This record gives sequence, C-alpha cells and structure tokens, in this order.
Amino acid sequence: MSKVKSITRPILTSEEYFQSIRDMGTEIWAFGEKNSEIADHPLFFPHVNAVAKTYELAPKVKSHISGKDISRFNHIHQSTDDLVKKAKMLRVLNQQTACCIQRCAGMDALNATYIVTYEIDQKYGTDYHERFNKFLSYVQDYNLVTIGAMTDVKGDRSKKSNEQADPDLFVHAIEEREDGIIVRGAKAHLTGVTGAHEMMVFPTENMKEASKDYALVFSCPVDTPGITYIFGRQTNDSRKLEKGDIDKGNAQYACVGGECIAIFDDVFIPWEDVYMYKEYEFAGMFVEAFATSHRQNYGACKGGICDVLIGATYGIAKANGVEKASHIKDKIGEMIHLSETLYASSIACSNEGRKTSSGAYIANTMLANVTKLNTTKFIYEVNRLAHDICGGILATLPSEADFIHPEIGPLLEKYLRGIPTISTNEKQRLLRLVETLSGGTASVEAMHGAGPPQAQKVMMLRDANLEAKLKLAQKIAGISKSEDTI
Amino acid sequence: MSKVKSITRPILTSEEYFQSIRDMGTEIWAFGEKNSEIADHPLFFPHVNAVAKTYELAPKVKSHISGKDISRFNHIHQSTDDLVKKAKMLRVLNQQTACCIQRCAGMDALNATYIVTYEIDQKYGTDYHERFNKFLSYVQDYNLVTIGAMTDVKGDRSKKSNEQADPDLFVHAIEEREDGIIVRGAKAHLTGVTGAHEMMVFPTENMKEASKDYALVFSCPVDTPGITYIFGRQTNDSRKLEKGDIDKGNAQYACVGGECIAIFDDVFIPWEDVYMYKEYEFAGMFVEAFATSHRQNYGACKGGICDVLIGATYGIAKANGVEKASHIKDKIGEMIHLSETLYASSIACSNEGRKTSSGAYIANTMLANVTKLNTTKFIYEVNRLAHDICGGILATLPSEADFIHPEIGPLLEKYLRGIPTISTNEKQRLLRLVETLSGGTASVEAMHGAGPPQAQKVMMLRDANLEAKLKLAQKIAGISKSEDTI
Amino acid sequence: MSKVKSITRPILTSEEYFQSIRDMGTEIWAFGEKNSEIADHPLFFPHVNAVAKTYELAPKVKSHISGKDISRFNHIHQSTDDLVKKAKMLRVLNQQTACCIQRCAGMDALNATYIVTYEIDQKYGTDYHERFNKFLSYVQDYNLVTIGAMTDVKGDRSKKSNEQADPDLFVHAIEEREDGIIVRGAKAHLTGVTGAHEMMVFPTENMKEASKDYALVFSCPVDTPGITYIFGRQTNDSRKLEKGDIDKGNAQYACVGGECIAIFDDVFIPWEDVYMYKEYEFAGMFVEAFATSHRQNYGACKGGICDVLIGATYGIAKANGVEKASHIKDKIGEMIHLSETLYASSIACSNEGRKTSSGAYIANTMLANVTKLNTTKFIYEVNRLAHDICGGILATLPSEADFIHPEIGPLLEKYLRGIPTISTNEKQRLLRLVETLSGGTASVEAMHGAGPPQAQKVMMLRDANLEAKLKLAQKIAGISKSEDTI
Amino acid sequence: MSKVKSITRPILTSEEYFQSIRDMGTEIWAFGEKNSEIADHPLFFPHVNAVAKTYELAPKVKSHISGKDISRFNHIHQSTDDLVKKAKMLRVLNQQTACCIQRCAGMDALNATYIVTYEIDQKYGTDYHERFNKFLSYVQDYNLVTIGAMTDVKGDRSKKSNEQADPDLFVHAIEEREDGIIVRGAKAHLTGVTGAHEMMVFPTENMKEASKDYALVFSCPVDTPGITYIFGRQTNDSRKLEKGDIDKGNAQYACVGGECIAIFDDVFIPWEDVYMYKEYEFAGMFVEAFATSHRQNYGACKGGICDVLIGATYGIAKANGVEKASHIKDKIGEMIHLSETLYASSIACSNEGRKTSSGAYIANTMLANVTKLNTTKFIYEVNRLAHDICGGILATLPSEADFIHPEIGPLLEKYLRGIPTISTNEKQRLLRLVETLSGGTASVEAMHGAGPPQAQKVMMLRDANLEAKLKLAQKIAGISKSEDTI
Repeated sequence: MSKVKSITRPILTSEEYFQSIRDMGTEIWAFGEKNSEIADHPLFFPHVNAVAKTYELAPKVKSHISGKDISRFNHIHQSTDDLVKKAKMLRVLNQQTACCIQRCAGMDALNATYIVTYEIDQKYGTDYHERFNKFLSYVQDYNLVTIGAMTDVKGDRSKKSNEQADPDLFVHAIEEREDGIIVRGAKAHLTGVTGAHEMMVFPTENMKEASKDYALVFSCPVDTPGITYIFGRQTNDSRKLEKGDIDKGNAQYACVGGECIAIFDDVFIPWEDVYMYKEYEFAGMFVEAFATSHRQNYGACKGGICDVLIGATYGIAKANGVEKASHIKDKIGEMIHLSETLYASSIACSNEGRKTSSGAYIANTMLANVTKLNTTKFIYEVNRLAHDICGGILATLPSEADFIHPEIGPLLEKYLRGIPTISTNEKQRLLRLVETLSGGTASVEAMHGAGPPQAQKVMMLRDANLEAKLKLAQKIAGISKSEDTI
Repeated sequence: MSKVKSITRPILTSEEYFQSIRDMGTEIWAFGEKNSEIADHPLFFPHVNAVAKTYELAPKVKSHISGKDISRFNHIHQSTDDLVKKAKMLRVLNQQTACCIQRCAGMDALNATYIVTYEIDQKYGTDYHERFNKFLSYVQDYNLVTIGAMTDVKGDRSKKSNEQADPDLFVHAIEEREDGIIVRGAKAHLTGVTGAHEMMVFPTENMKEASKDYALVFSCPVDTPGITYIFGRQTNDSRKLEKGDIDKGNAQYACVGGECIAIFDDVFIPWEDVYMYKEYEFAGMFVEAFATSHRQNYGACKGGICDVLIGATYGIAKANGVEKASHIKDKIGEMIHLSETLYASSIACSNEGRKTSSGAYIANTMLANVTKLNTTKFIYEVNRLAHDICGGILATLPSEADFIHPEIGPLLEKYLRGIPTISTNEKQRLLRLVETLSGGTASVEAMHGAGPPQAQKVMMLRDANLEAKLKLAQKIAGISKSEDTI
Repeated sequence: MSKVKSITRPILTSEEYFQSIRDMGTEIWAFGEKNSEIADHPLFFPHVNAVAKTYELAPKVKSHISGKDISRFNHIHQSTDDLVKKAKMLRVLNQQTACCIQRCAGMDALNATYIVTYEIDQKYGTDYHERFNKFLSYVQDYNLVTIGAMTDVKGDRSKKSNEQADPDLFVHAIEEREDGIIVRGAKAHLTGVTGAHEMMVFPTENMKEASKDYALVFSCPVDTPGITYIFGRQTNDSRKLEKGDIDKGNAQYACVGGECIAIFDDVFIPWEDVYMYKEYEFAGMFVEAFATSHRQNYGACKGGICDVLIGATYGIAKANGVEKASHIKDKIGEMIHLSETLYASSIACSNEGRKTSSGAYIANTMLANVTKLNTTKFIYEVNRLAHDICGGILATLPSEADFIHPEIGPLLEKYLRGIPTISTNEKQRLLRLVETLSGGTASVEAMHGAGPPQAQKVMMLRDANLEAKLKLAQKIAGISKSEDTI
Repeated sequence: MSKVKSITRPILTSEEYFQSIRDMGTEIWAFGEKNSEIADHPLFFPHVNAVAKTYELAPKVKSHISGKDISRFNHIHQSTDDLVKKAKMLRVLNQQTACCIQRCAGMDALNATYIVTYEIDQKYGTDYHERFNKFLSYVQDYNLVTIGAMTDVKGDRSKKSNEQADPDLFVHAIEEREDGIIVRGAKAHLTGVTGAHEMMVFPTENMKEASKDYALVFSCPVDTPGITYIFGRQTNDSRKLEKGDIDKGNAQYACVGGECIAIFDDVFIPWEDVYMYKEYEFAGMFVEAFATSHRQNYGACKGGICDVLIGATYGIAKANGVEKASHIKDKIGEMIHLSETLYASSIACSNEGRKTSSGAYIANTMLANVTKLNTTKFIYEVNRLAHDICGGILATLPSEADFIHPEIGPLLEKYLRGIPTISTNEKQRLLRLVETLSGGTASVEAMHGAGPPQAQKVMMLRDANLEAKLKLAQKIAGISKSEDTI
C-alpha cells in the first residue's frame, strides 16, 4: 500500500498536523503559479487552518478494527448513534469555524468503500474489502486526513463516460501492468486538497457494461506523482492576499473548502490500492452509498454556519438599533426556522439509518436526499434574509484601508456608527462576515456539493414507492380491498 | 374520581369500542339538531370509525405504572425511542385511514399533565401528580379514548383572559365548593368528541397573577352534565348525508377529526379531577409541554396523509396516461420532498427529546416547532401540486348520482375515461379522494391545529439563543476572543 | 345562421336577461336529475345572477361593425386601450360579485375567431370571416351572452386527438351533409352554460394533418338539440340547497362559474355556423389566440376577488381585535402584494398588446402567460394567508341552523363574539365568505382555467427567444462582437 | 446657480462625455488612496463606460421646457407613454451593458423635485419651482449626468433624524448665510459618482416639525469643494485591477453602479440651488415621489440584466449538452417567468401613472411598490436557478492566468471542454459572466436599491384602502347594503 512518504508517525496535535502538511509539500497551482508552501501561503492557510481545528475539536471514538481511540472523521459507523454523532460534530465544528471543515467527503468515501467492497467480494470472491481495511487502519492509526475525488469533468453531459468524444473526460485506466494500473483523467471540485494526506477516487455515475473501464475505485497519497492540482477561484479570493483581516470576512478559516481540479496525467496506482476495477454494476451502489452519506451532512454543517450567520445578522440589527422591530424579528425567526429545518433532516436521516451487509451503518437514503435538497433552496433564502436585514451597506462598505487611513478613517468612524454603545469597528467586522458567509461561492457549494438538486429528486422518486402509495389510496377510495401497508 | 358511568370494564376490541360510544350516548348538536346516536349517525360515524382503527392497529406498550400492556395512545413516554415510536405510529395510522385519528391531543394532554403536576407538587407540596396518576391508570386500564380541550374562545385577542368584556370568554371556576368547583366558559376546536370517553381541559395561554382564576386543569367524562357540544361545519360535510360512497371521498373515515365547540354551562368538577388550580405560573409550562408534544406529531400524521394523497395523485396521472411526463414526475417528486421533510422534522424532534423532572420524555421544543411551522406551509403546497397534476376535472366532475343514472351514466363512462386499462370508476374515485384530502377543512387543520404559525415562530425565537449565536460570530469576526460554544 | 329561437329582440336590462334564460329553458343535469328552470333553481340561480350583474355594470362601447353602443363583452378589441379597459372591467365586476362572471371565455372566443377566420380566408380564399361577422353582429345587436367550449375530454393524454382508442374523445364531425355537419364528442369545463345564449366551440390543441378531422370551429345556440349538459360538483355545492343564506358564503353570486360537461351526441351544425373545417394548421393559431386572450384576464378578475377576500380577512382580524398586530399587517400586506402583482401582469399584457392582420388587437403573449402562471401559485398563497389570519374557527364554525336555534343560538352568540363593537353575526358571515372564496373549487379554477401551468411554461419558453438572449451574453462576455439587440 | 466649472458647452457624444469626466477630475477615495483620474482608472472605468453607453443609445425626446431634443434621462414625464418609454429604455440599456446604467436615480430626483417644488410654491408662495427649472434647463441643454443622494447614514435606526446622539447623522444645514447655507452630514449608497456631473440631494424620511432642520433639497456639482467621496467595496472588485478580461466577468461595464459614501464636511450651497428648506411637511411627499419613480424602474432594468443572465445560463447548458433536458428547460422557463413578471410590473405601474399638479406624470404608487418588492425576491431566485443550471464549476473554475499558462492551460482546455462544438474559452467566459451577474453586490442592490422591502410593504398597506375592501366584503356577505365601489 502506498503511504505518504513524509509521514512517519501518527499525528497527535493540530501543530503536528500543520507540520505534516508542510512536510508533504503538495504542489497546487493558483493564479498561474505553482505553490508548494501550502500551509503558510495566505491563499491556502485559512483552509488548512479549518482542518486543523478538527484535530482540536473532533471527538475520539473507538475503532471497530483496532479498538483504539481514533478521530471520528476516520470512523466506520457502527450504529445509528454514530450517524447522529457525526451530524452533531459537524454542526459544532461549523459553528466554531464558519467554514467547511473539508473532511466529510473523505469520511463518507471511507464508509462507502467499506460497504461496497464487502458487496463486491461477496459476489466475486475478490479481496477488495481486506485491501481496503489495511488502508483504513493506516488512516485511522496515523490519524490522517482523507479527501474524496468523485466528480469527473464529464464533457458532454448528455453522454455517458464511454460515449465522449475524448475518452479521458472520465477517469479511467489506460494501461494494466502486473503491479498496478496507469490512470488518466480529471476530477473536478476536490474539496480540501490543501490540507489532505490521502485521497479516495471513485466513480460519479451508474454504469452499464459498456462503460466498465470507468468503474474504478482507488486511494493514493495526495502527493502522488503525476497529479496536477489547480485551485479554483472563489468569491473575493484575492482579499486573502491583501493586508488587514477585516475585509477577508473570516480571516482565520475562509468560508468554503477551497476546491481544486485534479488532473491525473498517467498516474501509477498499485493493485493493493485499487478497490473496484471493472465491476461496473457496483458503480451505482458506490455512488449511492457515498451520496447518501454525504447528503446526510448538509443540514448539520450548514446549520452550524447558519448559527454564525444568524448571530452576525442579529448583531448588525442590534448595531442599527432595530433588533426588536417586528419585521426584523420575523425575518430572524425565519432564518432560524430554515436553519433548524435543515438540521432536523440531518438528524432524522441519521436516526433512521440502516445496517448494511458489511456491518457499517448508513443514513436513510430518502431523508438524506431530503436534507440536501432542502439545502439547495434554504441556504439561498437564509442569505437573502441576511441581506434584507443588514441593509445596503453590505454592498457599499468602504475597504479596511479606508477605515484606517488618517484622513478619511475618522470620517467613516463618525458616519458609519450605529447605536452609540456598539463600535463602528464591530459593525464593520460583522458586515464583512455576513458578506463572506452569504456570498457566491458559499451558495454554489450549498447548491452543488454532494450533487445538484436534480440528482436528489431522481433518487427520491426512485425510493418513494409510488405503487405502494397508490395501493393505500385505492383501498381508501374503495377501489380495492387489500390490507397491504407500506 | 369521576368515571364514565356506562363503561364498566376494559375495552378490548374495536367492536367493544363502538359499543362503548353507543352506550355513552353523548349528545352533540349539528345543523340545529341534537343527536345522541353518534356512532351510527352518518355525519359522525366516519370520525368514530377512524378512532376505532386505533383499537385495531395501535401498538401495545408496557405501562410504566402498572407494567401491563396498554395502548401507546395512553402511554407516558419513557424514552426518546417512545417518542420516535409515537411518530411512526401516527404515520402508519394516517396512511391507513387518510384521516386525523383524533387521539393525539388527548395523549399529549396526558403527558403534559404528568409533567406539569410533578412540577407544581415540587413547588407547592400539592398532590396533583398523585391525583392525576389515578386518572391515568383508569384510562390506561380501561383502554379509554381521551381528548384535549385547550383553545378558549378568546373574544378580543388583543386582551388577556382577565381583561375581556365578558369574563366567561376563557374557561374559569365561578364557584368553589367543598367537594369541587363550578366551571363556566367555552373551548373551541375540540377534536374527537364524537369518539371520546374522557376529556382533559387546560389553559391556552401564559398567565400572570392577574389571570390566576383562569389557571385551571381538570379532567371529566365527555358526557358530564352541563357541557353542550356543537359540531362545526366542514368542507362538503353534507355529502356524508347523501346516498352513495364515492362523492364522500373517504367514506369510511372522513378526512379530519370533526371539531366541536364545548360550552361549559356551570359544570361541576370534583376536586379529585382538578390538576391545577390558580397556580398561574405553571399555565405557560403546561401550554409549552402540550404544544411541544402536539407539534411533534404533525410531520408524522400529515406525512401519512400525504402518502395517500401522493398515491391518489399518481393514480390519476396514470389514468390520464401522463405519469411519465417529466413535469408530472417533477411535481410528484416535489410532493414527496415536502412530505418527507415534514416527516423528518417529526423524527428529529422525537430523537432529540429530553427527560423532564417527572421522568417523562418530551420532544425537542425547537424542532417540534419547526415541524409544525413547516406543516402550515407545505401542506398547502402539496395540495396545490395535487391540483396541478389532477387537472380541472377535480373541480367539474359530475356527481355520483349522474354517473349511475341510466341515461347519462353511460355518457360519462364513455367520455371521462382516461387510458383504456383503467376504469372510469377508478379515476372518479381517486379524484374524489384527492378533492377531499386537499380540501379546505383539512388545510385549515394543518394551519391551525397545535396552534397558528405565529405561535411557533414566537417560541422558536425565544429558544434560539441569539446572544450565543452572536458570540460565535463575534469570535470569528475577530471582535472577541472568547472560546464559548453554544 | 342558427339563432336562439326564444329570443326575438335585444336584451336591454338584467330583468330581460333573466327572462331570456327562463324562456330558453336549457336543460342541465345535476345530481342525477334533469332541470330546465335554470334561472330560478337554487343550484343555478347564483351563477345566472352573476352574469345578470354584467348587464347592469358592464360598460358600453361602440361596435366597430355597427357603430352602435354594445356591451364590452361582445366587442372586438380595436386598440390596446380596449385591452386595458377589458381588464379593468373584469376587476370591477369581480369586486362586486366575488364570483367568476362567466363571460370572458365567450368574449375571448369571439375575438380569437375574428382573428383566425381572417387568416384562414387570406390563405384559402374561404369566407369564414364574413360568416362569423354575421354571427358577431347578431350577438352584439341582441346583446347576448356567449360562452366558449374548448377543452376536449382527451382520454389518454399522451396521445393526440386522432390516436385515441375511442375516436370521439375529441369533438369531430362524423358526417358531412349538404347543409351542414353532424358533430360528436364532448367538451369539459364549460363555464356559464347556466346563463348563456350562444356557444363557440373550438379546438384544444395544435394539430397536424393526421388530425385534421378534429380541426373544427363553430357556434351554436346553447339549447341546440342533441347537446347534453351535466353540471359538475363544486365545493359545498349542496349548501345552495339549504335554508338560510349565511353558510352559502356568497349567497347572491356563488364563487365560481358553475362548470358543465357538454356531450355532443350527433348534433347538426349548418355550414353558416362553421368557421374552421379541416384547416388543421390554424388550430394552433386559434388555441394561442384564445389562450392569450383568456390568460390576459386572470390577474384582473382574480385581483377583484382578492379585493373582497382581503377585505373579509381584514374584517375578521378587526373582529378579533388583532388588525394592528404586526404579523397580521405583514400577512395582509403580502396578500395585497400578491393580488396587485397579478393585476399588474394583466395590465401589462394588455398595454403591450399588438394589432393582428384582422385589425383586432390581442394581448402580449409572453406577458399574458406570465399573468396566468402567477395566478396558479399566488391564489393558493393568498388563500393560505387568509386561513392563517382567520384562525381555526374557519374550519369549525357551527352551521347557520345552530346559530338561529333558540337553545344553542344564544350560547354561540355569546361565546363566538370577538370585540364588543362587532356583532357575532358579522364575524360569522365574513368567515363563511372567506371559506367560500378560499375553497377548493375556486382554487382549482385559478390553477386550470385558461390552461394548466405547464401550458403557460411551454408557450413562454417558445417565445423567450433564448438564442437572442445568448447573443447578448456572448457580446458582453467578449465572445462575439455583434451589435444585435433583441 | 452653481455649474460644473470645467463644462463649457453641451456634451454631444460618448467621447465628449468621457472627456468631460476627465476634465472635472472629481476625487474619489478607494482602498485608502485618493484618485482623480476616474475615467481611466481600471477600478472606475467600467462604471463610467456604462454611463457612456447611454450617450450612444438613450433615445432623444422633446423637452417640454425648451422644445429641443434632449436625452430621455433628463426629461420630465409628460404622459404615461413617457413613463412606459422610460421603462423600455432601461431594459434595452441593461441588455446592452448587463450593468446598472446609474442615471435613473438622478432622473427620478429631477422629476420628484419638479413635482414637489410646484406643491411647496402653491402652499407657501415660494419660487422653488422656478429656481429648479433653471437648473433643469441647464442639465437638459448641456446634456449632463445627474445623480441622486438620498440615504442618510442614519445611526440608530430606531430614532428619527433629530433624535440621534450625533446631530450630523442626517444631512442638515448647520449655518444660514445671506448667500446660502452650510451643509453637514453624509449620504450613503450614491450610485454613479464616478460618471456624474451634477447631484441632487434630498431627504430620506417623512418628517415632523421637530426635524424640520433636516428638510432640505438642493443640487450641486459633483466636484463641489468640501465633499469627500469614498468608494464601497464590491464583490470581486479587485479583479478589476488584474490583468486579463475574462475573470472580470463583465470587463466593459462591471455589473453594478459602483457606490460611494459622500461626506459633506461643511459645504456651501447658494440659495439658488436650494429647492426645499425647512418645509418639513413636504419631505414625505418628496420621498414618495422619488421612491415611486425609482421603484418603477426595477422590473425593467433587472429584466434587462436577466435577459443577459438567462442567455449566459442557456449558453452554458448548451456547452454542457443539456439545454434540452426537461429539468433544465423547466428551470430556464422559471427564470424567464420571474424576469418577465418583474418587467410586467414596471410596464403596469408606468401605464397606470397619473398626472400631478405640476403637470408631470408619475407612476402608480401601488404598482411601483409591487415592482420593487418582487425584485427583492425574484432576483435571488433567478440567481439561484442560474447557479443550479451552471453547475459547481461556477465556484471552482481556475483563474484566467491558469488558462493561459503554457503548462497547465492546455490541460484545462482539454478537461473543461463541454461539447466539442463550443470552445472551452466560450464556456469559461459565460461562467465568469454568470458569476458576476448573480453575485453578492448585484443581489444586494436588487434588495436595497430604491429602499428595502419593508419600505415597500408599508407603502402598499397604506395605499391598499382596506376599509373599502372590507365594504365590498360586507356587501357580498349580506352585512351591509351599500352600493359603494372602490
């Protein structure tokens, strides 16, 4: 099994974690330049720092493999209680950072691989599950950060992987060797490359036999040769390169994960790191297991971010002297309602989880899809309400440099003051925080992270058992006499 | 303790239940006439029948008092698992009847009284809890149906109970005797009088000392002398008096509970049936305990009704040959999404319930309010989507009498046929079922049952802990350095 | 040209109009019985009475044919000002009746026929336009009420007219004679049969050559032999047969038009009344001309009904003493906002109308579709808000018979009183009015009248000129340099 | 009357306009630096350029004062047709620039001043109207750009102007001289300072006698000594300072107006430029006249921007090969529907405008408020739909510098390609355009420009005539017999 070469012992603290990222020296492109000092580069630091927070705050749990205390982020869920605790951990961490903490996709990929490798082995007598357990033990024991790479770049989306004009638009093995495979293609939207040690790579769609060459799951260290990472632009990203900390909004942690496209330019993967290879009929199962686990999270992590956003919005209302106005209270009440509805879905799909053949528990598919689909609407509505309450100044506030300028700073201090007992600086900081949390990239992430709304709707229709519902109706309408229940 | 005189032994079956209602002979006014043959009168039978279904299907659970198997409807919740099971029971029962099963308000009143009497006794050394436990044991042992009477008629809603022009607009004791009190006033919106044995009566608002005379909780048999019940009109209620079963929509169970106004015209209540008397500071606690328990239910019971409504709508789409049209699938998908979001909230508030001092468990207040507030919007949207899918015929379908008329029946049979493989009669029946389930009274019940939306919003704002959320924001915005979490 | 035999001179007053309906004696089935005393039958009277109101209130306008003053309902629009005045007339009439006034479909059919016959003649040298003008003059001169019959019953909606298992599921000529044609089929959802003299019959869908036998437009007196009318059930329709006027909600005018299915059982139509026959390529044009004209209306007429509904809801809030509560004001404000948005669309599509080749003006298609599509959502939301404000009593108010009963009437009078200065009776009446206006049938009419939402969306996508919009974007994004505008 | 010193003859072309801005040399602070080369500074150029477009495209209209052809932006509306043409001009200009064209606030201020000065003179015999007409003639004749300065910084919003701890938080005269007044205070959110010649300054709220010192309307050249302008930060503003044109999204015109705070540090205004002074009872009339005129615009200008956004979104769907997928068509259809609903309201309030005593026409207040209130919701929904359709790449697309880098550019070119017939570059450009148009600042502008939603709701409630609506309801419910109409 490939390991991250620079990591030679378990990571125990957030400081050690930071050092591990420095030691790896993963190269990431951004703004046309290649960077390797990721942990200390202002563009990437806040994202790494949010992950570091998980080393401080994530609860420990007993590994079902080793019996040792491990990070909950590397745990295979052994009960619905584990699923509920995962959700609660996410809310707390997002409350503390107001940022995507970037580890749930990896966590969900570990669980999905655990579940699906067991099923493949049952059918084909392969040893994927055992292979994977070695990798899992390594990740648990060394306390590593794993990310997930799922979304192929897809080209023409009306066509499947094997129908594209360019065969590389979905990740695939272009060569089989005795000791492993050579992989080519690209995965988009990788969250957390900046702070990750290991990566799980897996398919993005259901597959039929014709596309079996694309049915591929493997893991690899993030710094594996041949992978090129290019960092995506985010709303107001260049503020991270400016002086000062106010205009950044969330200077310590950014507000989203920081996404890369990863290009696999003929990368060697040894067989022991491969967990699915051409078993195309399990691609859909993997997608569903991962998607369900990932959609489970959104009500909890966005609920945590909403807590901060609601708090900041409330603070601005106080600064403006209007926190008791009835329409302001009504709108804050609506923000709470939306946020708690999201959270409720995360809790419900966790509590209603089920045990898989592998022994691992997974969230209820219908309710996990409900969770994510609500997120794609409610976060936009929460943001809209925040904008409503905060006022136009949210879009016209001068820069931090103006505020500290000796000539105009005092003018801004005088004229942008709200009520006398709250400083202009506090109002300024809260406005920048709201601007950041309610901004473009954060919204798009709520929309498309864990799949776009249509993906959720398709899965819900599939699982709704409409024929059984029709039978209930037929019985009540006097059409049939059957006593079936659903 | 007062008991229902006509009931001398435990009710074991739905047949015995029906007989018990016949034996009681409660008098209910409707359409200007007094009726006492409730169980067999076509206007009331469907409501009684829906309750009867609970005698067939409601699971048994061990009483924490007697250790005997009792109906879950008479149980005091001993764990969050009990709360979750309550929610699931409600969904199943509503799936089977497509009707309010009318026992949850009573169930919730029993739990609220259990919780609050314990608290009053703690403070005042009274023996309300013991009194109540006697009543509770009787209800559990005899397997009785209890309903809840909460909403005072209120008069001028800008005024509190003690400020009304007419002092009787909130239920109060007008006289104290050695053996009990004389009660006057009226309670509106009583669900399930038609099929009930016992009734819990309790306050509808927070109280201060000035209104302490209105702080009153008691139980009484439904047939207690001096109480006048008047049945409210419902959408299409007179169809229950027509021949035929199709136009009724849901001939066996109606679609809502059947609400009465109960007028207490100087009713004697013995002291042993009184569980709060002038302890005004506990009125608010009672309201909250009841409201939380009752709001918990709405996602589950409406989720069950939505299952039937979605099934019926889907059946009509099939009859029209359009169930695979993309916009129809999208709309059915949205109905499912809304219904499952409601259900998720019920599950979440149950799972996140807490133990009270009395030992009874109660749902999470915030999430129970989320559940109900979503219900007040989503049911309207689900109904709208059903109307969209079913087409204009939902509002122009001729009567059952036309369909069976020898001259025009065959014409309707020919011309209102959808696809050849589904009978016109099936389409007709499903349309009438959708009409009933998506109609006015059912919607209003989803809006105002367990309190209007504003009541939920007020409680959510109170519980949201905005100051703690503000602290989170202040820390992230660099305003404060505190390490508090919420 | 066929004329209504019993009408021998122009109708001048609403009394003469009532007499004309009595004289015709059209037979309509309802509840399995055939009725011919339409104008005086309690089931039909309110619908006729709403039409009668148009004889009192509809403004006169100069006929472009005769130069004489005619009812605006029989006018061919000569300008965008005519279109705007049509919209305003509808709002006023709906304010006065709170009921569909049932004449706009006929009005729109007259205009569509005027426009399309001109086009057919241009292409084929036929004389449909002249034929139609004779009919039009007759309708104008005699001041008659014309209705429109459009929606075929359709059977399997995934199939076109000519593909149905039963060829009669779309209206068609089954025989050609020298003097005319024999017509068979059925039209659903005919509004206003109860009060109409003449009827326009026309296609419901685009047609290709294969379905040319279904491309048919004609007029006929409503009492033409061979047509069977069956009245559809409406929400609470049997209250119209009860004593008293309160529970009817809107005793004088009902709340919707009263829809019939019309079955054409081999009906003879002379050639002079036929205005399209097998010119299938004009079926789509007719559908669009009618649909555009009809969709134009919905913001105006529903705006008028909303005025009444908002007024009634406000009155109930006053009776409850809460009309100044901020959340009540906010919700009433939202009702106004939605209602006025609907109205704005009607005004806009009228003002942006265009002149057709025939000289007649027609509303802007895009904005007319916008009008109707908003109606399908906003009316449901307005109704929901009304339910929210009015409280649960909307669904539990006892019957009028209870209120007037000597024993329980005084109790209801006492206990259902709101503030002292408004009578219980006024509150009771306003609640019944809200119940009626916000009820099932009225909602379904707002959804499906003038076509379901999907029909509007399809037409909007067709008219949106997406390629031109893309060009604008390409220019701004620096992709192209073209100077095109849209 | 004060004039812009550097402008000595009428501006005839966009080139002359650009030169006029260079000649003025207004100083604007941004990022802690003072800039005077506004027209050529990359941060300000796109805003100036959008205004320049109005010199090319804005239609001419005859001045009602001079009879000469003037820009429609400097016109006093003489008919409802003028109002409609204003709306249409705004849509076209926004289609061409996808940017706020920054001249409507000035245009609306000119009209409001014209209307209100007439009224003040009528009451007090002052000569404000004549004074103002001189200024107006100058602006018309020299073809100048005027902006509007309305929103005071307000401090504690629960207090009125005269109640603030700091008396300068609303603009006021601190000294009266023989030749004029000295003004102090600050106005926030000034749109278009970068490209303006003249400025109208006016109140932001209703006033009572206590705050009469704040009742002040005047005009002044933008470069009047003593005014400090500080430019607000916008979403992704620093991209304007980067190389390349793609990541800017809309390199030529930006996407919003570019707002400043203007601080009046004891500025002298001669009497001939003052148009209201202490006539406090006209402050509310001014606010309403301006707000109505300004709210009128939003459906038209945002409709124009939506045209571009819909086009770009459609282009991305084409690039992804999914423009015919039913859910994509449905979502694009919804974007069109929302955009056209906005536009419909602008047209309707224009068409329903009324003549004021001054002779100038003004839009219908109710419908203008409807227009703006819809904008505050629909733009967010349109943006959400755009995000949905465009996919996650909207938030993860690498920078332009990466795309042109010799090493990684070709990889991005290969892997981010959609369908083969559309270049990666086109997709990249359209994504950046959508990102810009749907971003934070643009949304906040849609929310708060022309006042926040609550301001619209308050005005709608005031104008809705609820008592008249109640009378309609009372009549129909049989409560009263009055024949009043509304």
